[in-house]
Amino acid sequence: MTGDRARSTVGRLAVVGLGPGTREWRTPEATQRLREATDLVGYRTYLRQVGPLAEHQTIHPFANRREAERAAYALDLAAAGGDVAVVSSGDPGIFAMAAAVVEELHRENASGRWAHVPVTIVPGVTAATAAAARIGAPLGHDLCLISLSDVLKPWSVVERRIEAAAAGDFVIGFYNPLSRHRPWQLGRALEVLGRHRAADTTVVEAHDVGRPDERIFVTTLAQVEPARVNMGTILLIGSSTTQRFTDASGREWVYTPRHYPATSPDSTD
Amino acid sequence: MTGDRARSTVGRLAVVGLGPGTREWRTPEATQRLREATDLVGYRTYLRQVGPLAEHQTIHPFANRREAERAAYALDLAAAGGDVAVVSSGDPGIFAMAAAVVEELHRENASGRWAHVPVTIVPGVTAATAAAARIGAPLGHDLCLISLSDVLKPWSVVERRIEAAAAGDFVIGFYNPLSRHRPWQLGRALEVLGRHRAADTTVVEAHDVGRPDERIFVTTLAQVEPARVNMGTILLIGSSTTQRFTDASGREWVYTPRHYPATSPDSTD
Repeated sequence: MTGDRARSTVGRLAVVGLGPGTREWRTPEATQRLREATDLVGYRTYLRQVGPLAEHQTIHPFANRREAERAAYALDLAAAGGDVAVVSSGDPGIFAMAAAVVEELHRENASGRWAHVPVTIVPGVTAATAAAARIGAPLGHDLCLISLSDVLKPWSVVERRIEAAAAGDFVIGFYNPLSRHRPWQLGRALEVLGRHRAADTTVVEAHDVGRPDERIFVTTLAQVEPARVNMGTILLIGSSTTQRFTDASGREWVYTPRHYPATSPDSTD
Repeated sequence: MTGDRARSTVGRLAVVGLGPGTREWRTPEATQRLREATDLVGYRTYLRQVGPLAEHQTIHPFANRREAERAAYALDLAAAGGDVAVVSSGDPGIFAMAAAVVEELHRENASGRWAHVPVTIVPGVTAATAAAARIGAPLGHDLCLISLSDVLKPWSVVERRIEAAAAGDFVIGFYNPLSRHRPWQLGRALEVLGRHRAADTTVVEAHDVGRPDERIFVTTLAQVEPARVNMGTILLIGSSTTQRFTDASGREWVYTPRHYPATSPDSTD
Protein backbone atom coordinates (compact mmCIF):
# COMPACT_ATOMS: atom_id res chain seq x y z
CA MET A 1 0.00 0.00 0.00
CA THR A 2 1.33 3.40 -0.97
CA GLY A 3 0.56 4.87 2.44
CA ASP A 4 2.60 2.21 4.27
CA ARG A 5 5.54 2.53 1.94
CA ALA A 6 5.58 6.30 2.32
CA ARG A 7 5.68 5.98 6.09
CA SER A 8 8.87 3.89 6.08
CA THR A 9 10.95 7.07 5.44
CA VAL A 10 10.83 10.68 6.55
CA GLY A 11 7.92 12.47 4.90
CA ARG A 12 7.45 16.14 4.17
CA LEU A 13 5.24 18.99 5.24
CA ALA A 14 3.56 21.83 3.36
CA VAL A 15 1.66 24.70 4.94
CA VAL A 16 -0.95 25.18 2.25
CA GLY A 17 -2.91 28.38 1.62
CA LEU A 18 -6.31 27.46 0.20
CA GLY A 19 -7.06 31.01 -0.85
CA PRO A 20 -10.37 32.49 0.30
CA GLY A 21 -13.28 30.16 -0.37
CA THR A 22 -13.70 29.30 -4.03
CA ARG A 23 -11.38 26.86 -5.73
CA GLU A 24 -11.15 29.33 -8.61
CA TRP A 25 -8.68 31.17 -6.36
CA ARG A 26 -6.65 28.15 -5.25
CA THR A 27 -3.20 27.92 -6.86
CA PRO A 28 -2.04 24.82 -8.78
CA GLU A 29 0.77 24.32 -6.24
CA ALA A 30 -1.78 24.22 -3.40
CA THR A 31 -4.05 21.83 -5.29
CA GLN A 32 -1.15 19.50 -6.04
CA ARG A 33 0.13 19.39 -2.46
CA LEU A 34 -3.40 18.71 -1.18
CA ARG A 35 -3.86 15.91 -3.73
CA GLU A 36 -0.54 14.25 -2.87
CA ALA A 37 -0.90 14.54 0.90
CA THR A 38 -1.44 11.44 3.02
CA ASP A 39 -2.44 13.56 6.03
CA LEU A 40 -4.35 16.81 6.25
CA VAL A 41 -4.08 18.78 9.47
CA GLY A 42 -6.12 21.85 10.20
CA TYR A 43 -8.84 23.82 11.81
CA ARG A 44 -12.11 21.98 11.21
CA THR A 45 -13.67 24.75 9.09
CA TYR A 46 -10.73 24.89 6.68
CA LEU A 47 -10.58 21.12 6.26
CA ARG A 48 -14.19 21.21 5.08
CA GLN A 49 -13.10 23.77 2.48
CA VAL A 50 -10.50 21.40 0.96
CA GLY A 51 -13.06 19.35 -0.93
CA PRO A 52 -13.25 15.62 -1.64
CA LEU A 53 -10.43 13.49 -0.27
CA ALA A 54 -8.78 10.45 -1.84
CA GLU A 55 -8.83 7.02 -0.21
CA HIS A 56 -5.24 7.25 1.05
CA GLN A 57 -5.88 10.47 2.97
CA THR A 58 -6.43 10.90 6.70
CA ILE A 59 -7.79 14.10 8.17
CA HIS A 60 -6.70 15.43 11.56
CA PRO A 61 -9.15 18.15 12.60
CA PHE A 62 -8.24 20.60 15.36
CA ALA A 63 -10.17 23.21 17.25
CA ASN A 64 -9.16 26.81 16.64
CA ARG A 65 -6.55 28.55 18.86
CA ARG A 66 -4.27 25.53 19.23
CA GLU A 67 -1.75 26.56 16.58
CA ALA A 68 1.47 25.48 18.33
CA GLU A 69 0.07 22.06 19.22
CA ARG A 70 -1.30 21.62 15.71
CA ALA A 71 2.07 22.56 14.19
CA ALA A 72 4.04 20.13 16.38
CA TYR A 73 1.55 17.35 15.70
CA ALA A 74 1.86 17.90 11.94
CA LEU A 75 5.67 17.99 12.06
CA ASP A 76 5.68 14.73 14.04
CA LEU A 77 3.43 13.13 11.41
CA ALA A 78 5.85 14.21 8.67
CA ALA A 79 8.88 13.00 10.65
CA ALA A 80 7.14 9.63 10.87
CA GLY A 81 6.80 9.45 7.09
CA GLY A 82 3.58 11.30 6.32
CA ASP A 83 3.13 13.62 3.35
CA VAL A 84 1.46 16.28 5.46
CA ALA A 85 -0.56 19.31 4.40
CA VAL A 86 -1.28 21.85 7.12
CA VAL A 87 -4.31 23.65 5.79
CA SER A 88 -4.84 27.40 6.12
CA SER A 89 -7.45 29.64 4.57
CA GLY A 90 -6.18 32.51 2.40
CA ASP A 91 -2.41 32.92 2.56
CA PRO A 92 -0.78 30.85 5.31
CA GLY A 93 1.72 33.63 6.09
CA ILE A 94 -0.94 36.26 6.87
CA PHE A 95 -2.36 35.68 10.38
CA ALA A 96 -2.36 31.94 9.77
CA MET A 97 -0.42 28.71 10.31
CA ALA A 98 2.96 29.38 8.66
CA ALA A 99 4.33 31.39 11.61
CA ALA A 100 3.26 28.69 14.08
CA VAL A 101 5.02 25.95 12.10
CA VAL A 102 8.24 27.93 11.68
CA GLU A 103 8.19 28.90 15.36
CA GLU A 104 7.98 25.20 16.31
CA LEU A 105 10.92 24.46 14.00
CA HIS A 106 12.84 27.20 15.79
CA ARG A 107 11.94 25.91 19.25
CA GLU A 108 13.20 22.41 18.39
CA ASN A 109 16.11 23.54 16.22
CA ALA A 110 18.74 22.52 18.76
CA SER A 111 17.12 19.16 19.52
CA GLY A 112 16.97 18.20 15.85
CA ARG A 113 13.50 16.72 16.39
CA TRP A 114 12.34 17.70 12.89
CA ALA A 115 15.73 18.38 11.31
CA HIS A 116 15.14 16.14 8.31
CA VAL A 117 11.59 17.14 7.46
CA PRO A 118 11.43 19.22 4.25
CA VAL A 119 9.02 22.08 4.91
CA THR A 120 7.39 24.20 2.21
CA ILE A 121 5.10 27.19 2.63
CA VAL A 122 2.59 27.37 -0.25
CA PRO A 123 1.34 30.95 -0.62
CA GLY A 124 -2.25 31.81 -1.46
CA VAL A 125 -4.52 34.69 -2.32
CA THR A 126 -5.16 36.47 0.98
CA ALA A 127 -8.68 37.53 1.96
CA ALA A 128 -7.99 41.28 1.81
CA THR A 129 -6.96 41.28 -1.85
CA ALA A 130 -9.84 38.98 -2.81
CA ALA A 131 -12.31 41.25 -1.00
CA ALA A 132 -10.73 44.27 -2.69
CA ALA A 133 -11.10 42.64 -6.13
CA ARG A 134 -14.84 42.20 -5.64
CA ILE A 135 -15.43 45.91 -5.09
CA GLY A 136 -12.74 47.54 -7.28
CA ALA A 137 -9.35 48.49 -5.92
CA PRO A 138 -9.61 49.87 -2.37
CA LEU A 139 -6.05 48.64 -1.63
CA GLY A 140 -4.65 50.50 -4.64
CA HIS A 141 -2.25 52.49 -2.45
CA ASP A 142 -0.07 51.94 0.62
CA LEU A 143 -1.85 49.72 3.12
CA CYS A 144 -1.72 48.07 6.54
CA LEU A 145 -3.21 44.75 7.58
CA ILE A 146 -4.01 44.44 11.29
CA SER A 147 -5.51 41.53 13.19
CA LEU A 148 -7.96 42.76 15.84
CA SER A 149 -7.53 39.59 17.85
CA ASP A 150 -6.00 40.25 21.26
CA VAL A 151 -5.68 36.58 22.14
CA LEU A 152 -1.93 36.55 21.38
CA LYS A 153 -1.07 40.22 21.79
CA PRO A 154 -2.16 42.87 24.27
CA TRP A 155 -4.95 45.17 23.13
CA SER A 156 -2.64 48.16 23.70
CA VAL A 157 -0.50 46.94 20.78
CA VAL A 158 -3.55 46.82 18.53
CA GLU A 159 -4.49 50.37 19.48
CA ARG A 160 -0.95 51.61 18.99
CA ARG A 161 -0.95 50.12 15.48
CA ILE A 162 -4.34 51.57 14.57
CA GLU A 163 -3.11 55.00 15.70
CA ALA A 164 0.06 54.59 13.63
CA ALA A 165 -1.85 53.41 10.55
CA ALA A 166 -4.20 56.37 10.90
CA ALA A 167 -1.28 58.79 11.26
CA GLY A 168 0.21 57.40 8.05
CA ASP A 169 -3.10 57.74 6.17
CA PHE A 170 -2.85 54.10 5.12
CA VAL A 171 -5.74 52.08 3.78
CA ILE A 172 -6.33 49.55 6.57
CA GLY A 173 -7.51 45.96 6.41
CA PHE A 174 -8.87 44.46 9.64
CA TYR A 175 -8.56 40.66 9.93
CA ASN A 176 -10.31 38.70 12.72
CA PRO A 177 -12.45 41.73 13.56
CA LEU A 178 -14.81 40.08 16.02
CA SER A 179 -15.63 36.73 17.55
CA ARG A 180 -17.92 35.33 20.20
CA HIS A 181 -15.07 35.62 22.71
CA ARG A 182 -14.00 39.10 21.57
CA PRO A 183 -17.22 41.09 21.31
CA TRP A 184 -16.04 44.66 22.06
CA GLN A 185 -12.74 44.95 20.14
CA LEU A 186 -14.16 46.07 16.80
CA GLY A 187 -16.23 48.83 18.37
CA ARG A 188 -13.21 50.09 20.22
CA ALA A 189 -11.05 49.93 17.05
CA LEU A 190 -13.61 51.99 15.14
CA GLU A 191 -13.69 54.49 17.98
CA VAL A 192 -9.89 54.89 17.83
CA LEU A 193 -10.04 55.31 14.04
CA GLY A 194 -12.86 57.82 14.36
CA ARG A 195 -10.52 60.17 16.20
CA HIS A 196 -8.35 60.37 13.05
CA ARG A 197 -10.63 59.79 10.08
CA ALA A 198 -13.82 61.48 8.95
CA ALA A 199 -17.10 59.78 9.87
CA ASP A 200 -17.90 59.43 6.14
CA THR A 201 -14.65 57.55 5.37
CA THR A 202 -15.49 54.70 3.01
CA VAL A 203 -15.46 51.22 4.56
CA VAL A 204 -15.88 47.91 2.75
CA GLU A 205 -17.49 45.12 4.79
CA ALA A 206 -16.65 41.85 3.05
CA HIS A 207 -18.34 38.75 4.44
CA ASP A 208 -17.35 35.21 3.43
CA VAL A 209 -15.51 36.31 0.29
CA GLY A 210 -15.35 33.56 -2.32
CA ARG A 211 -17.94 31.43 -0.53
CA PRO A 212 -21.51 30.75 -1.62
CA ASP A 213 -22.92 33.24 0.89
CA GLU A 214 -20.50 36.06 0.03
CA ARG A 215 -21.88 39.52 0.81
CA ILE A 216 -20.03 42.80 0.25
CA PHE A 217 -21.33 46.09 1.61
CA VAL A 218 -19.95 49.57 1.11
CA THR A 219 -20.56 51.76 4.13
CA THR A 220 -18.88 54.47 6.17
CA LEU A 221 -16.77 54.52 9.31
CA ALA A 222 -19.73 55.88 11.30
CA GLN A 223 -22.08 53.20 10.00
CA VAL A 224 -20.18 49.92 10.23
CA GLU A 225 -22.55 47.46 11.84
CA PRO A 226 -20.66 45.18 14.29
CA ALA A 227 -23.74 42.95 14.50
CA ARG A 228 -23.14 41.91 10.88
CA VAL A 229 -19.45 41.16 11.51
CA ASN A 230 -17.86 37.84 12.46
CA MET A 231 -14.65 35.83 11.93
CA GLY A 232 -15.55 35.46 8.25
CA THR A 233 -15.51 39.22 7.75
CA ILE A 234 -12.71 41.41 6.43
CA LEU A 235 -13.05 45.17 6.83
CA LEU A 236 -11.24 47.54 4.51
CA ILE A 237 -11.05 51.12 5.81
CA GLY A 238 -10.36 53.78 3.18
CA SER A 239 -7.65 56.41 3.44
CA SER A 240 -8.27 60.12 2.88
CA THR A 241 -8.07 59.59 -0.89
CA THR A 242 -10.28 56.51 -1.26
CA GLN A 243 -13.10 57.07 -3.79
CA ARG A 244 -16.56 55.58 -4.08
CA PHE A 245 -19.12 55.70 -6.90
CA THR A 246 -22.05 53.82 -8.39
CA ASP A 247 -22.06 53.02 -12.10
CA ALA A 248 -24.96 53.08 -14.58
CA SER A 249 -25.82 49.46 -13.82
CA GLY A 250 -26.09 50.21 -10.09
CA ARG A 251 -22.84 48.47 -9.22
CA GLU A 252 -20.84 50.07 -6.42
CA TRP A 253 -17.12 50.67 -6.80
CA VAL A 254 -14.41 51.62 -4.32
CA TYR A 255 -10.82 52.43 -5.21
CA THR A 256 -7.79 54.23 -3.87
CA PRO A 257 -5.91 56.04 -6.63
CA ARG A 258 -2.21 55.34 -6.98
CA HIS A 259 -1.49 59.06 -7.11
CA TYR A 260 -1.64 61.22 -4.00
CA PRO A 261 -2.13 65.00 -3.80
CA ALA A 262 1.10 66.96 -3.52
CA THR A 263 -0.10 68.73 -0.41
CA SER A 264 -1.01 65.84 1.81
CA PRO A 265 -4.36 66.41 3.48
CA ASP A 266 -4.08 66.58 7.25
CA SER A 267 -5.90 63.91 9.15
CA THR A 268 -8.93 65.25 10.96
CA ASP A 269 -7.41 65.18 14.43
CA MET B 1 -13.85 33.75 -37.37
CA THR B 2 -14.46 33.73 -33.62
CA GLY B 3 -12.73 37.10 -33.19
CA ASP B 4 -15.02 38.84 -35.70
CA ARG B 5 -18.16 37.38 -34.22
CA ALA B 6 -17.12 38.39 -30.68
CA ARG B 7 -16.54 41.96 -31.84
CA SER B 8 -20.11 42.39 -33.07
CA THR B 9 -21.34 42.92 -29.46
CA VAL B 10 -19.99 44.55 -26.32
CA GLY B 11 -17.17 42.48 -24.88
CA ARG B 12 -15.89 42.32 -21.35
CA LEU B 13 -12.76 43.18 -19.41
CA ALA B 14 -10.82 41.43 -16.66
CA VAL B 15 -7.88 42.87 -14.79
CA VAL B 16 -5.94 39.68 -14.27
CA GLY B 17 -3.34 39.08 -11.57
CA LEU B 18 -0.77 36.59 -12.86
CA GLY B 19 0.71 36.01 -9.44
CA PRO B 20 4.47 36.40 -9.09
CA GLY B 21 6.35 34.53 -11.80
CA THR B 22 5.66 30.80 -11.79
CA ARG B 23 2.41 29.45 -13.15
CA GLU B 24 2.25 27.23 -10.07
CA TRP B 25 0.98 30.39 -8.32
CA ARG B 26 -1.51 31.48 -10.97
CA THR B 27 -5.17 30.92 -10.00
CA PRO B 28 -7.56 28.91 -12.18
CA GLU B 29 -9.73 32.01 -12.63
CA ALA B 30 -6.73 33.93 -13.99
CA THR B 31 -5.75 31.09 -16.32
CA GLN B 32 -9.27 30.83 -17.66
CA ARG B 33 -9.67 34.54 -18.35
CA LEU B 34 -6.31 34.61 -20.10
CA ARG B 35 -7.26 31.60 -22.22
CA GLU B 36 -10.63 33.07 -23.23
CA ALA B 37 -9.33 36.57 -23.96
CA THR B 38 -9.21 37.87 -27.52
CA ASP B 39 -7.00 40.77 -26.49
CA LEU B 40 -4.24 41.00 -23.89
CA VAL B 41 -3.18 44.46 -22.77
CA GLY B 42 -0.25 45.08 -20.52
CA TYR B 43 3.21 46.17 -19.69
CA ARG B 44 5.60 44.33 -22.04
CA THR B 45 7.36 42.38 -19.25
CA TYR B 46 4.10 40.98 -17.86
CA LEU B 47 2.79 39.98 -21.28
CA ARG B 48 5.89 37.83 -21.75
CA GLN B 49 5.01 36.16 -18.44
CA VAL B 50 1.56 35.07 -19.72
CA GLY B 51 2.92 32.16 -21.74
CA PRO B 52 1.87 30.81 -25.12
CA LEU B 53 -1.04 32.55 -26.84
CA ALA B 54 -3.79 31.02 -28.94
CA GLU B 55 -4.35 31.94 -32.58
CA HIS B 56 -7.33 34.19 -31.86
CA GLN B 57 -5.38 36.37 -29.43
CA THR B 58 -3.88 39.80 -30.05
CA ILE B 59 -1.37 41.35 -27.71
CA HIS B 60 -1.21 45.09 -27.02
CA PRO B 61 2.08 45.83 -25.28
CA PHE B 62 2.57 49.11 -23.44
CA ALA B 63 5.55 50.82 -21.88
CA ASN B 64 5.47 51.15 -18.10
CA ARG B 65 4.05 54.29 -16.40
CA ARG B 66 1.17 54.75 -18.82
CA GLU B 67 -1.48 53.17 -16.64
CA ALA B 68 -4.38 55.55 -17.35
CA GLU B 69 -3.85 55.40 -21.11
CA ARG B 70 -3.52 51.62 -20.99
CA ALA B 71 -6.73 51.33 -18.95
CA ALA B 72 -8.74 53.54 -21.33
CA TYR B 73 -7.38 51.69 -24.35
CA ALA B 74 -8.36 48.33 -22.84
CA LEU B 75 -11.86 49.54 -21.93
CA ASP B 76 -12.33 50.84 -25.49
CA LEU B 77 -11.32 47.44 -26.86
CA ALA B 78 -13.89 45.76 -24.62
CA ALA B 79 -16.59 48.26 -25.56
CA ALA B 80 -15.88 47.39 -29.20
CA GLY B 81 -16.49 43.70 -28.50
CA GLY B 82 -13.15 42.39 -27.31
CA ASP B 83 -12.77 39.87 -24.51
CA VAL B 84 -9.97 41.82 -22.89
CA ALA B 85 -7.48 40.79 -20.23
CA VAL B 86 -5.46 43.59 -18.67
CA VAL B 87 -2.44 41.78 -17.35
CA SER B 88 -0.78 42.59 -14.01
CA SER B 89 1.92 40.76 -12.13
CA GLY B 90 1.06 39.58 -8.61
CA ASP B 91 -2.29 40.88 -7.38
CA PRO B 92 -3.77 43.58 -9.64
CA GLY B 93 -5.11 45.52 -6.65
CA ILE B 94 -1.71 45.96 -4.95
CA PHE B 95 0.25 48.75 -6.67
CA ALA B 96 -0.95 47.51 -10.05
CA MET B 97 -3.56 48.03 -12.78
CA ALA B 98 -6.89 47.56 -10.97
CA ALA B 99 -6.91 51.07 -9.49
CA ALA B 100 -6.11 52.62 -12.88
CA VAL B 101 -9.00 50.79 -14.58
CA VAL B 102 -11.51 51.66 -11.87
CA GLU B 103 -10.34 55.28 -11.87
CA GLU B 104 -10.98 55.47 -15.63
CA LEU B 105 -14.46 54.01 -15.10
CA HIS B 106 -15.07 56.72 -12.50
CA ARG B 107 -13.78 59.49 -14.78
CA GLU B 108 -16.15 58.43 -17.57
CA ASN B 109 -19.04 57.42 -15.32
CA ALA B 110 -21.17 60.41 -16.29
CA SER B 111 -20.47 60.05 -20.03
CA GLY B 112 -21.44 56.38 -20.07
CA ARG B 113 -18.51 55.64 -22.41
CA TRP B 114 -17.96 52.19 -20.90
CA ALA B 115 -21.28 51.79 -19.10
CA HIS B 116 -22.07 48.41 -20.62
CA VAL B 117 -18.68 46.75 -20.27
CA PRO B 118 -18.68 44.06 -17.57
CA VAL B 119 -15.48 44.51 -15.58
CA THR B 120 -13.98 41.85 -13.28
CA ILE B 121 -10.90 42.11 -11.09
CA VAL B 122 -9.18 38.72 -10.79
CA PRO B 123 -7.07 38.62 -7.61
CA GLY B 124 -3.68 36.95 -7.43
CA VAL B 125 -0.94 36.00 -5.02
CA THR B 126 0.91 39.23 -4.29
CA ALA B 127 4.72 39.32 -4.34
CA ALA B 128 5.13 40.04 -0.62
CA THR B 129 3.32 36.90 0.51
CA ALA B 130 5.12 34.75 -2.08
CA ALA B 131 8.48 36.14 -0.94
CA ALA B 132 7.49 35.53 2.67
CA ALA B 133 6.58 31.91 1.88
CA ARG B 134 10.04 31.23 0.49
CA ILE B 135 11.77 32.22 3.73
CA GLY B 136 9.25 31.20 6.39
CA ALA B 137 6.66 33.62 7.76
CA PRO B 138 8.13 37.12 8.13
CA LEU B 139 4.63 38.62 7.60
CA GLY B 140 3.16 36.52 10.42
CA HIS B 141 2.01 39.59 12.31
CA ASP B 142 0.50 43.02 11.55
CA LEU B 143 2.10 44.48 8.43
CA CYS B 144 2.30 47.46 6.08
CA LEU B 145 2.96 47.44 2.34
CA ILE B 146 4.48 50.66 0.99
CA SER B 147 5.48 51.52 -2.57
CA LEU B 148 8.71 53.53 -2.61
CA SER B 149 7.87 54.99 -5.99
CA ASP B 150 7.43 58.76 -5.85
CA VAL B 151 6.30 59.03 -9.45
CA LEU B 152 2.62 59.38 -8.44
CA LYS B 153 2.96 60.66 -4.86
CA PRO B 154 5.32 63.15 -3.22
CA TRP B 155 8.30 61.65 -1.41
CA SER B 156 7.13 63.38 1.79
CA VAL B 157 4.11 61.03 1.83
CA VAL B 158 6.40 58.01 1.57
CA GLU B 159 8.51 59.25 4.49
CA ARG B 160 5.45 60.01 6.57
CA ARG B 161 4.23 56.47 6.01
CA ILE B 162 7.58 54.88 6.83
CA GLU B 163 7.66 56.89 10.06
CA ALA B 164 4.15 55.76 10.93
CA ALA B 165 4.87 52.11 10.11
CA ALA B 166 7.98 52.29 12.29
CA ALA B 167 6.04 53.89 15.16
CA GLY B 168 3.52 51.04 14.98
CA ASP B 169 6.27 48.39 14.98
CA PHE B 170 4.75 46.85 11.85
CA VAL B 171 6.56 44.40 9.61
CA ILE B 172 7.01 46.44 6.41
CA GLY B 173 7.06 45.32 2.78
CA PHE B 174 8.62 47.72 0.28
CA TYR B 175 7.33 47.43 -3.29
CA ASN B 176 9.02 49.21 -6.22
CA PRO B 177 12.08 49.92 -4.05
CA LEU B 178 14.38 51.26 -6.76
CA SER B 179 14.52 51.89 -10.47
CA ARG B 180 16.85 53.50 -12.97
CA HIS B 181 14.85 56.73 -12.63
CA ARG B 182 14.61 56.56 -8.82
CA PRO B 183 18.11 55.72 -7.60
CA TRP B 184 18.20 57.40 -4.15
CA GLN B 185 14.77 56.59 -2.68
CA LEU B 186 15.65 53.24 -1.14
CA GLY B 187 18.74 54.58 0.61
CA ARG B 188 16.68 57.41 2.04
CA ALA B 189 13.91 55.01 3.15
CA LEU B 190 16.44 52.84 4.97
CA GLU B 191 17.88 55.94 6.63
CA VAL B 192 14.43 56.94 7.91
CA LEU B 193 13.81 53.40 9.18
CA GLY B 194 17.24 53.33 10.82
CA ARG B 195 16.14 56.14 13.13
CA HIS B 196 13.49 53.83 14.58
CA ARG B 197 14.75 50.27 14.23
CA ALA B 198 17.95 48.58 15.36
CA ALA B 199 20.73 48.21 12.78
CA ASP B 200 20.51 44.43 13.16
CA THR B 201 16.78 44.30 12.33
CA THR B 202 16.19 41.36 10.01
CA VAL B 203 15.52 42.22 6.37
CA VAL B 204 14.56 39.82 3.59
CA GLU B 205 15.72 40.82 0.10
CA ALA B 206 13.61 38.83 -2.37
CA HIS B 207 14.63 39.11 -6.01
CA ASP B 208 12.45 37.84 -8.89
CA VAL B 209 10.34 35.59 -6.66
CA GLY B 210 8.81 32.71 -8.58
CA ARG B 211 11.01 33.27 -11.63
CA PRO B 212 13.89 31.11 -12.80
CA ASP B 213 16.49 33.50 -11.40
CA GLU B 214 14.85 33.87 -7.96
CA ARG B 215 17.29 34.83 -5.22
CA ILE B 216 16.39 35.40 -1.57
CA PHE B 217 18.85 36.89 0.92
CA VAL B 218 18.44 37.41 4.63
CA THR B 219 20.33 40.46 5.79
CA THR B 220 20.00 43.33 8.26
CA LEU B 221 18.79 46.90 8.04
CA ALA B 222 22.39 48.16 8.15
CA GLN B 223 23.51 45.80 5.41
CA VAL B 224 20.84 46.00 2.71
CA GLU B 225 22.72 46.41 -0.56
CA PRO B 226 20.86 48.85 -2.87
CA ALA B 227 23.15 47.79 -5.73
CA ARG B 228 21.45 44.36 -5.68
CA VAL B 229 17.95 45.88 -5.70
CA ASN B 230 15.76 46.65 -8.71
CA MET B 231 12.08 46.72 -9.73
CA GLY B 232 11.97 42.93 -9.40
CA THR B 233 12.89 43.13 -5.72
CA ILE B 234 10.59 43.07 -2.70
CA LEU B 235 12.08 44.01 0.67
CA LEU B 236 10.54 42.75 3.90
CA ILE B 237 11.67 44.63 6.99
CA GLY B 238 11.21 42.82 10.28
CA SER B 239 9.49 44.28 13.34
CA SER B 240 11.02 44.23 16.83
CA THR B 241 9.81 40.64 17.29
CA THR B 242 10.90 39.13 13.96
CA GLN B 243 13.08 36.05 14.45
CA ARG B 244 15.84 34.53 12.31
CA PHE B 245 17.60 31.17 12.54
CA THR B 246 19.45 28.60 10.45
CA ASP B 247 18.38 24.95 10.61
CA ALA B 248 20.55 21.82 10.60
CA SER B 249 20.48 21.64 6.80
CA GLY B 250 21.78 25.21 6.56
CA ARG B 251 18.45 26.65 5.44
CA GLU B 252 17.71 30.14 6.73
CA TRP B 253 14.33 30.94 8.24
CA VAL B 254 12.64 34.21 9.14
CA TYR B 255 9.32 34.55 10.94
CA THR B 256 7.33 36.98 13.00
CA PRO B 257 5.47 35.23 15.83
CA ARG B 258 1.75 35.84 16.12
CA HIS B 259 2.12 36.55 19.82
CA TYR B 260 3.57 39.81 21.05
CA PRO B 261 5.16 40.55 24.44
CA ALA B 262 2.77 42.07 26.97
CA THR B 263 5.07 45.03 27.54
CA SER B 264 5.57 46.37 24.06
CA PRO B 265 9.24 47.10 23.38
CA ASP B 266 9.88 50.77 22.70
CA SER B 267 11.25 51.60 19.32
CA THR B 268 14.90 52.63 19.49
CA ASP B 269 14.34 56.34 18.91
